[in-house]
Amino acid sequence: MAVDTGLTPPPSPALFTDRYELTMVAAALADGTADRQCVFEVFARRLPHGRRYGVLAGTGRLLEALPHFRFGDDELAALREQGLTDARLLDWLADFRFSGDIDGYAEGELYFPGSPVLTVRASFAEGVLLETLALSVLNHDSAIASAAARMISAACERPCIEMGSRRTHEEAAVAAARAAHLVGFAASSNLEAGRRYAVPTTGTSAHAFTLLHDDERSAFEAQVAALGKDTTLLVDTYDVEEGIRTAVEVAGPELGGIRLDSGDLPTLATRARELLDELGATGTRIVVTSDLDEYAIAGLAAAPVDGYGVGTSLVTGSGAPTVGMVYKLVERDGVPVAKRSEGKLSVGGRKSAVRRHRDGVSTAELVTAGPVAARPDDRDLLVPLVRGGETCDPVSPAEALRLARAHHEQVRAALPPEAFALSRGEPVLDTVTAREGLR
Amino acid sequence: MAVDTGLTPPPSPALFTDRYELTMVAAALADGTADRQCVFEVFARRLPHGRRYGVLAGTGRLLEALPHFRFGDDELAALREQGLTDARLLDWLADFRFSGDIDGYAEGELYFPGSPVLTVRASFAEGVLLETLALSVLNHDSAIASAAARMISAACERPCIEMGSRRTHEEAAVAAARAAHLVGFAASSNLEAGRRYAVPTTGTSAHAFTLLHDDERSAFEAQVAALGKDTTLLVDTYDVEEGIRTAVEVAGPELGGIRLDSGDLPTLATRARELLDELGATGTRIVVTSDLDEYAIAGLAAAPVDGYGVGTSLVTGSGAPTVGMVYKLVERDGVPVAKRSEGKLSVGGRKSAVRRHRDGVSTAELVTAGPVAARPDDRDLLVPLVRGGETCDPVSPAEALRLARAHHEQVRAALPPEAFALSRGEPVLDTVTAREGLR
Repeated sequence: MAVDTGLTPPPSPALFTDRYELTMVAAALADGTADRQCVFEVFARRLPHGRRYGVLAGTGRLLEALPHFRFGDDELAALREQGLTDARLLDWLADFRFSGDIDGYAEGELYFPGSPVLTVRASFAEGVLLETLALSVLNHDSAIASAAARMISAACERPCIEMGSRRTHEEAAVAAARAAHLVGFAASSNLEAGRRYAVPTTGTSAHAFTLLHDDERSAFEAQVAALGKDTTLLVDTYDVEEGIRTAVEVAGPELGGIRLDSGDLPTLATRARELLDELGATGTRIVVTSDLDEYAIAGLAAAPVDGYGVGTSLVTGSGAPTVGMVYKLVERDGVPVAKRSEGKLSVGGRKSAVRRHRDGVSTAELVTAGPVAARPDDRDLLVPLVRGGETCDPVSPAEALRLARAHHEQVRAALPPEAFALSRGEPVLDTVTAREGLR
Repeated sequence: MAVDTGLTPPPSPALFTDRYELTMVAAALADGTADRQCVFEVFARRLPHGRRYGVLAGTGRLLEALPHFRFGDDELAALREQGLTDARLLDWLADFRFSGDIDGYAEGELYFPGSPVLTVRASFAEGVLLETLALSVLNHDSAIASAAARMISAACERPCIEMGSRRTHEEAAVAAARAAHLVGFAASSNLEAGRRYAVPTTGTSAHAFTLLHDDERSAFEAQVAALGKDTTLLVDTYDVEEGIRTAVEVAGPELGGIRLDSGDLPTLATRARELLDELGATGTRIVVTSDLDEYAIAGLAAAPVDGYGVGTSLVTGSGAPTVGMVYKLVERDGVPVAKRSEGKLSVGGRKSAVRRHRDGVSTAELVTAGPVAARPDDRDLLVPLVRGGETCDPVSPAEALRLARAHHEQVRAALPPEAFALSRGEPVLDTVTAREGLR
């Protein structure tokens, strides 16, 4: 059952699809294999270089898109125009709605090499059609969430604000704001993320606003008049010290915050704190926002900083803009199948996945084609997401994000401490993969 | 005048906007500075590390979005819900349509550090609102186009196919396919790029199709039956040599192509060519597709390869997923303005831009706040894009892409040969920046 979000339905995502999926469906319809019951799994062969864990994100967006994944007249006309004119294919697509089952890791869950984060059970034709969309959503959103989680660790308890919209595709920006909030970012600059997902939005002013005015004081006066004394004033357009003095003169010691967007931030923040305190603005926060990544955030741990604004490095996955998840056929009519290719982790057959714990701390990821003898601390990682094409427990997009955020917080707390090292290392949990069951 | 594309209009892009743009507008409306006439410029302070030139892309997409950048009832309600309740602001937004002028580099044009690729002249309030959308579109699309252009050079005249949709956000994938085609990619796997921009689409089958069948031969037979003998068969699911033999047995020597998606490609391609020739399939093409980037493509120059499929590295900008363009206020009521910040290339005032040539080869980029004494070989880089809010010379999205592609081919041909080195280096043209005119 679809939840009414009150929003205009998005255009059909059916053509966010690689052409080869349709040519495969056409050929399979012709030779009678299209209906073979298949299991496809999504997993990553490895984590981005040196990362200790990955964060699965995007599942909620995929489930939002699924009911709209239909081929209407417009889509069918577009296919014909691109030379996909096979009548059997087009008739089949016209009737298509996904009617299979999907299990997966809960959104916000951690993943490791080989973790089966999504399992699609359907006829070949139905299952293969979802390949590109599923991978686009999960690869992008997981890349952002995985990078953002490291920034949250580096920031300790100080709030992080996502402000990278301008550095990525305009729709990817909305998904990035969502993924960042999922792992603990407090807010985003992106208004569309506020609309779609109820991500708290924030923002005050840019250098342009100061430059628009005859002098800095007029700009500060205008901002305080419009947004109140609790606003954050950007003090580095001309001279930081002078900017801070003017800011406190204009807003008084109740000034909410100042923002530093350039220069040597540890030094500047220390000097700014001293000056603010000197001026009696002891409660005024210092927010920094200049090309930060997790390392720069960690480097500011000892500086008197009250919040971080993160842009470019967040929306580009801090060196890993995608996470290399693949969508593989692992079972056909009950028979495990796998490409025979050296050096690749390819175990055929539908997997189950369990995270093992000792004293509440995660110790291993068990991924097996057979049953696992459960221990008391084990946690089953695969949860039902779709049955017979219908979303299980449908919730609004905002509620799905809220649930994923809560889940992520909980599962991350169970990781061993070495997971949060920023230095390059091995995945913090070993994935135990087996063709057979495990005890 | 908007061109009717026959497509459902996209949802309003008005909220692809950072919140601070609206708080600035609110404050400027309150203190009477909102109507000050402003010039904003988009430029990049530098090229991604080691790149010789950049390719501007996205202008056409920005012009597509501009007429839809309106605040309807849904958008205004969403702003209110996010706490943006200032009545003067909301009234102003309800009436907003962009009414200013925009000049810019033609899409597909090359750019260098400081090149003013977009110039927006409007009231402060109107101009500042476009900041995030303009940067999102130009930063993303230019990153892809700039990386893709290097792949085209590395491939010499061999065709490149874009197939990276699964490795990036689903909407970014469409823009990436468009940007790749702009700089010379022959085709894309992305069906939506075919629909929106008439990018030629291509695709045949994946390993899943072979694994679906009882054996490789049945899969090849099904594909040839559905797609004809000119199709491309994926021969590396089990054993490449056996795969090639089976492929030629099934399709005959008229087989269109084989695809290799794993292994040591130079060796495999050489052996595949020998075997194909031995089997009489001398016209059968060899397409390779395994995690290629510009360096891997160059490394295959001596191998008997007929085409490259490029995915991950293309859609992630091959190490530079964004290009760092900024949107800066440079003039207010005729007065040049600039942030006083060390180490940043910030020249106030509206710029003109000219590419200088000698014997038909580009020699320098002149960016000046004053007039340039033109030489016969000079080419003005700024062209009118929008006047009074209306697109100049509106064309369909597909036609805009076709024109940009032709323009890019022409201007790239004028670069000196060292521009096409893949190794890291300095920008191949010096940008001559001046506050005054140049002779």
